[in-house]
Amino acid sequence: MSKSIYIFGFHSVESLLNTNPESVLKVFIQSGRKDFRVNDLNETLSDLKIPFSGVEKNELDRIAKGEAHQGVISEVILPPLLTEDTLLSSIEYLPTNTKPLILILDSIQDPRNLGACLRSANAAGVSHVIINKDGSAPINALVHKTSAGAINSLQIFHVTNLSRTIKSIQEKGIWVIGLDGESSTKIYDVNLSDPTAIVMGTEGKGIRQLIKKTCDQLVTIPMSGNIESLNVSVATGIALFESKRQRESS
Amino acid sequence: MSKSIYIFGFHSVESLLNTNPESVLKVFIQSGRKDFRVNDLNETLSDLKIPFSGVEKNELDRIAKGEAHQGVISEVILPPLLTEDTLLSSIEYLPTNTKPLILILDSIQDPRNLGACLRSANAAGVSHVIINKDGSAPINALVHKTSAGAINSLQIFHVTNLSRTIKSIQEKGIWVIGLDGESSTKIYDVNLSDPTAIVMGTEGKGIRQLIKKTCDQLVTIPMSGNIESLNVSVATGIALFESKRQRESS
Repeated sequence: MSKSIYIFGFHSVESLLNTNPESVLKVFIQSGRKDFRVNDLNETLSDLKIPFSGVEKNELDRIAKGEAHQGVISEVILPPLLTEDTLLSSIEYLPTNTKPLILILDSIQDPRNLGACLRSANAAGVSHVIINKDGSAPINALVHKTSAGAINSLQIFHVTNLSRTIKSIQEKGIWVIGLDGESSTKIYDVNLSDPTAIVMGTEGKGIRQLIKKTCDQLVTIPMSGNIESLNVSVATGIALFESKRQRESS
Repeated sequence: MSKSIYIFGFHSVESLLNTNPESVLKVFIQSGRKDFRVNDLNETLSDLKIPFSGVEKNELDRIAKGEAHQGVISEVILPPLLTEDTLLSSIEYLPTNTKPLILILDSIQDPRNLGACLRSANAAGVSHVIINKDGSAPINALVHKTSAGAINSLQIFHVTNLSRTIKSIQEKGIWVIGLDGESSTKIYDVNLSDPTAIVMGTEGKGIRQLIKKTCDQLVTIPMSGNIESLNVSVATGIALFESKRQRESS
């Protein structure tokens, strides 16, 4: 079942009103605020017939628990997280000639990183995101915020056994490529235009061993400099947009 | 003159001890902590002759002002920020056949984003980072942390008049390319192998008009999905690694 969460600030709700207004249940606006941005927001909410009301600042502070809210808090409904069965039938019934680009996130525990990965996934045209349910950050308000609303536009699948799911999608003809700093194959030298899933692990530790073994191929983003790794959301963006680049030029 | 700041947590100091141990002035470790990670840290600090001492938890909490510190706080010296004069002579005296890749950050005000951009710059082999002094986040502990120590390995230039600096580097033969969501030229279709500077603006607003006009060319990262923009550090990573890809395959 879908659940509702509070999200904070203008940008989060404005972005949702543009992309998924139906996910916004109610908006609380700080009493007495009457600037242009508030007026615009009031107008949009009225047009969309979304309820909103004035609330005292200290009540907003209480709901936000220390997060910056700029005088606006929205109650939004999260999209339902989908299961492995839905994933497999969704891949099965894709239109002919569709070449899905799937993102698999192995144990991303930092909600900001998870949200940022989802934001990049949406921008790169990812069709399905697969997340291991037990080892990953829950989809909460912070994930929602850092995803810039992208979680409402993505099909996100929570699975309990990630290596089993990978084997199942491989059987459906998806080539599974894991990012691994120790691989000697550059991501630029592999074909990412066919139906592909890209697996990202955590910074430092990378993809878990068992998951690594399940991948069809391991590749690296070649790095200069002396830092250990890229931020996982940046690495995800680079990998997904390399696939997008190849698809658009092939 | 260089100044010192406090950085928090194991990862930050471990990363610095690997890359720039000379920047670590002193380390405070929570009294009574005696696990493996603390023992390893003590050993490394002893080997490197860096002073460290046990401090009560409430004193660490006081220094950290609410940031998570995991029982470790380090006093580190920031590298000096360099000026426009140093930048121009540094470009002038580059060895023949060096094709610098320069990152210009226009008014990045969020310290996490600034730090993440610097981390990506280091990983992509950027030679110089140019930041407009007045409109950008100051290089503080949060920037340091999110840069994963990269700021100690980069040449960072703070300039007062960004468009003047851009004109000066153009005169030195650098091609200046600005990222602009409204451009119809894809970043993948331009040559980023020659001496290049890539200009990034803030999310949403982008590069300021005056700076845009100074660029030799504006390009876009083509996006799918329905979100407005990529996170600036992700867009920076994609742009810089596209340049790196082109340089390595040319």
